Amino acid sequence: MNYTAATRVLTHVGAMEMLRAAIAKAEEIGQPQCIVIVDAAGDVVAEVRMTGAKFLSRKSALTKALTVASAGTPTTAVPEGVRPAIAAATGGRVTGLPGGLPIRIDGVLMGGIGVGSGTGDQDVAVAEAALRAVGAAI
Amino acid sequence: MNYTAATRVLTHVGAMEMLRAAIAKAEEIGQPQCIVIVDAAGDVVAEVRMTGAKFLSRKSALTKALTVASAGTPTTAVPEGVRPAIAAATGGRVTGLPGGLPIRIDGVLMGGIGVGSGTGDQDVAVAEAALRAVGAAI
Amino acid sequence: MNYTAATRVLTHVGAMEMLRAAIAKAEEIGQPQCIVIVDAAGDVVAEVRMTGAKFLSRKSALTKALTVASAGTPTTAVPEGVRPAIAAATGGRVTGLPGGLPIRIDGVLMGGIGVGSGTGDQDVAVAEAALRAVGAAI
Amino acid sequence: MNYTAATRVLTHVGAMEMLRAAIAKAEEIGQPQCIVIVDAAGDVVAEVRMTGAKFLSRKSALTKALTVASAGTPTTAVPEGVRPAIAAATGGRVTGLPGGLPIRIDGVLMGGIGVGSGTGDQDVAVAEAALRAVGAAI
Repeated sequence: MNYTAATRVLTHVGAMEMLRAAIAKAEEIGQPQCIVIVDAAGDVVAEVRMTGAKFLSRKSALTKALTVASAGTPTTAVPEGVRPAIAAATGGRVTGLPGGLPIRIDGVLMGGIGVGSGTGDQDVAVAEAALRAVGAAI
Repeated sequence: MNYTAATRVLTHVGAMEMLRAAIAKAEEIGQPQCIVIVDAAGDVVAEVRMTGAKFLSRKSALTKALTVASAGTPTTAVPEGVRPAIAAATGGRVTGLPGGLPIRIDGVLMGGIGVGSGTGDQDVAVAEAALRAVGAAI
Repeated sequence: MNYTAATRVLTHVGAMEMLRAAIAKAEEIGQPQCIVIVDAAGDVVAEVRMTGAKFLSRKSALTKALTVASAGTPTTAVPEGVRPAIAAATGGRVTGLPGGLPIRIDGVLMGGIGVGSGTGDQDVAVAEAALRAVGAAI
Repeated sequence: MNYTAATRVLTHVGAMEMLRAAIAKAEEIGQPQCIVIVDAAGDVVAEVRMTGAKFLSRKSALTKALTVASAGTPTTAVPEGVRPAIAAATGGRVTGLPGGLPIRIDGVLMGGIGVGSGTGDQDVAVAEAALRAVGAAI
């Protein structure tokens, strides 16, 4: 391996387009959501808390985004048997709750999106709408 | 949706009246309580720790108040199967313990009250007394 | 004073429009920024970290937003002589750094915007552009 | 010294009477306040955030109450020269900002009251009103 390596990052333009599409989907299904987008290092790029969303869902949406940006797989892929142990060992930063999906574009893991305030199915639908808007893998 | 929206907030006058009624009920049943009232954003408006109450119940009473102010439903409405996962994903801010009730007046969710130190039934009874005192929905 | 009081809140539609205008201004002056918008209780409604912005400016932008949402005046209005003492007494949540402006629409304090990563003048210019986009007072 | 010693504590009845008097004074001078009352161990007995008060003043009011409950003297008695060092060494729990007064009744230090959101003079006036209401030393 060389000393440096090429990569690609999600820009704020991409993140804002994801928020726009996520909000549109949330409005379409009538469920206000908290939506958090983090980069490959787990740092927030953009987020929004829609009017009427549960405020504590900001916390769980961030946790979902962190989980998937780190692992590269949906939150639901965290094996059920180890969820409590992994959550405890990471200071509560890993969750198996549905609504977290990795952002992978052209094969590169660029971060994660976490959505919370609705049912698991609603959260996933909003996250998928955001991924589609920027051509990310579903 | 416009840039701004009308809403109503619980005043400190309402919160103090809730504390008064809650203390009266707690004294009536002979169980000192920790009582915490938060607004719709989860910030404390008023609280009291009655002489003889368990001091750690301040923590659980706050958690109960946060849970219901965020979700708009009693703490006991958090589905049992997901309680540990949601608690972990929110940094311990969601609980299913009885004693947390949303403050909804004239149809507007204005926050939550959390009561702790007694049995679940006692905690709920004190919270309900506080809600009745300001004309909030039970 | 009654138990409840009427007020108005900034919606996510308003907050997203503020982010859009702030990003446009930041691009115009060629300075990537971290932009944080909080409500009247200090909770984040929306935020973005532009590509190329300093990542620690997310922290200072949030602090700026909290300062102004709490006090209702620009960060620079915090008296110089007491800045260290107030910062210490609030756990670092108050700052006198330029780039924080209150969001006041139709006379109602609805929160604050904090901008960081540029010079003080650049931060203020971006915050002002956001306020203008939603008809807030400058 | 014997193995145990008699003492006296501030009850929630005393703390609620202090809040009542403090609110009345704050309304009289037209300045909404955050008011925090802690016991001799620094734990909150009662608090209120009046409608219109700065929300960050909850933090500084608590810090003021902790400072005086621990030291037994007003916050302003903390020597100016050592304020930054003591604040740093206590994790920000000591402040020299005016508005914190010890609660001493019949010569016994029972805790502290911290008031914040107004000018230093306003904060002190509200704290003194609370002390007078329960016959505490000024």
